[in-house]
Amino acid sequence: MPAAYRADTVVILGLGLIGGSLARALRRSGFSRRFVGYGHRETSLRRGVELGVIDDFTLDLEQAIGQADILVVCTPTLIAADMLRDILPRLAAAGGPVITDVASVKGSLRDAAIGAMGAMPPRLVLAHPIAGSERSGVEASDADLFINHRVIVTPVEGNDPAALDLVRAMWASTGAEVVDMAVDEHDAVLAATSHLPHVLAYALVDALAQSAASEDIFRFAAGGFRDFTRIASSDPAMWRDIAIANGPALLNSIDLFSEHLGGLRQAIVEGDAQSLFATFTRAKQARDDFAAILAERGRRKS
Amino acid sequence: MPAAYRADTVVILGLGLIGGSLARALRRSGFSRRFVGYGHRETSLRRGVELGVIDDFTLDLEQAIGQADILVVCTPTLIAADMLRDILPRLAAAGGPVITDVASVKGSLRDAAIGAMGAMPPRLVLAHPIAGSERSGVEASDADLFINHRVIVTPVEGNDPAALDLVRAMWASTGAEVVDMAVDEHDAVLAATSHLPHVLAYALVDALAQSAASEDIFRFAAGGFRDFTRIASSDPAMWRDIAIANGPALLNSIDLFSEHLGGLRQAIVEGDAQSLFATFTRAKQARDDFAAILAERGRRKS
Repeated sequence: MPAAYRADTVVILGLGLIGGSLARALRRSGFSRRFVGYGHRETSLRRGVELGVIDDFTLDLEQAIGQADILVVCTPTLIAADMLRDILPRLAAAGGPVITDVASVKGSLRDAAIGAMGAMPPRLVLAHPIAGSERSGVEASDADLFINHRVIVTPVEGNDPAALDLVRAMWASTGAEVVDMAVDEHDAVLAATSHLPHVLAYALVDALAQSAASEDIFRFAAGGFRDFTRIASSDPAMWRDIAIANGPALLNSIDLFSEHLGGLRQAIVEGDAQSLFATFTRAKQARDDFAAILAERGRRKS
Repeated sequence: MPAAYRADTVVILGLGLIGGSLARALRRSGFSRRFVGYGHRETSLRRGVELGVIDDFTLDLEQAIGQADILVVCTPTLIAADMLRDILPRLAAAGGPVITDVASVKGSLRDAAIGAMGAMPPRLVLAHPIAGSERSGVEASDADLFINHRVIVTPVEGNDPAALDLVRAMWASTGAEVVDMAVDEHDAVLAATSHLPHVLAYALVDALAQSAASEDIFRFAAGGFRDFTRIASSDPAMWRDIAIANGPALLNSIDLFSEHLGGLRQAIVEGDAQSLFATFTRAKQARDDFAAILAERGRRKS
């Protein structure tokens, strides 16, 4: 392998938007020389070759593992756990490929890996690129997808430092901002900022759609409602998997939220204008601060 | 009054974004000849004259009423109820000005009017333009604000048909789409599509801002969170008033929502993937249908 390549061959398991975009970005950055797809759906793998996203593909897991310097599991969250259980026992104890993933929940994968192997495999590095698109599939893959997005790497006790460094370097080469976080903190933060809002949006739209006045409700809904419910158009299978995989952290977030909603409900019952005003003012301040953070991040990008 | 004017003089009580935009739109459409502002804050009234939004102003309520063909109460929701209690007893029983408003809640104003007068005053027509802006004040007023927006007129038993027609014609001349709706239906629909989402967004942001991990939470929040919480940056005083004025309908909406959220919570506790998938799929379908309605409305506008 020429010194210029950090890892000669990257094998993408599950070639969709994220895996395809990662291959395109790593090819462009010169991080790796060769990209191989693995999966069950030959048509999208063949399409990946046609599009120049991957150089080759295989439907055989042993072959996929055999040629990999880095294995990237890019399947949905629940399938990723099954795949780890399948792959990890086949890897050589030392010197085998580094294996990493892109799933939205990290604790369930750590637990699956420890369950399968008795301890955290040193060369398994869990990571989560916070990036996506309304489009999906390898056709939508984009070498720019990760630029200026966060990638959270979640080191676990027992991880091989060299494997951690390789995964961090891989993501940095895509233009992403790489950040370390503990597994449980990752899952709590993502539950609060992403998984909970999705559940709330799904719950609201479903409640209104099933109410008697649903026709009027959607006919008179305005811009605020459109923004608030946009994420309820997300892929139901993906979010089912996330809700199951991150169950405990998500339940904590739901309960914290319900407690605050209950407080506002009580203030409305009591006509407690002062308490409503205090809560709304605090929330507006926090949201305005958040908007300022986003604006600052936007300035740094340009 | 020349035949071309439907109402010679319009008096705006509370000259801000909505009142100023209405005056600008009615001047342009030729619906009225003369616009007079009334309020307590002389500086914004004086500014309204400078900007050509109004022709004159007064700080005296009797004078305001005396020259009006239409009185439009454009103050926030709770102040609007106080203002009705103040104005209605001063109006001549028959042949006086038509009086209307722009508040987000209609039942509380109907009840205030009936409470003050013993019955619905025939020439009081309640209405709600579903339009706004992130900006506020007469400086931000815009003759185009209502074009293609809905204005809901809520007729009440005892309303004078000529007064209803005049208010409908006034809003139609601004370019708005005028729709009739019963008072209670209006308040239920707005509770569901607007007031509830605002309360949910305020509750979520406040819950997260007060949690121990709030710094990380906002640091790693992404685009979905930004859209979902945008309405938590709305004016706290305005939303306090709306939450109080529309209390009963809002409590119904909160309870309906909480029931659905409780169902999702239980499905997560039980790991019931099938039920989560069914709910998320139904909600996505409803949200996609709503997006199609919005797209269709957009096409009709252009």
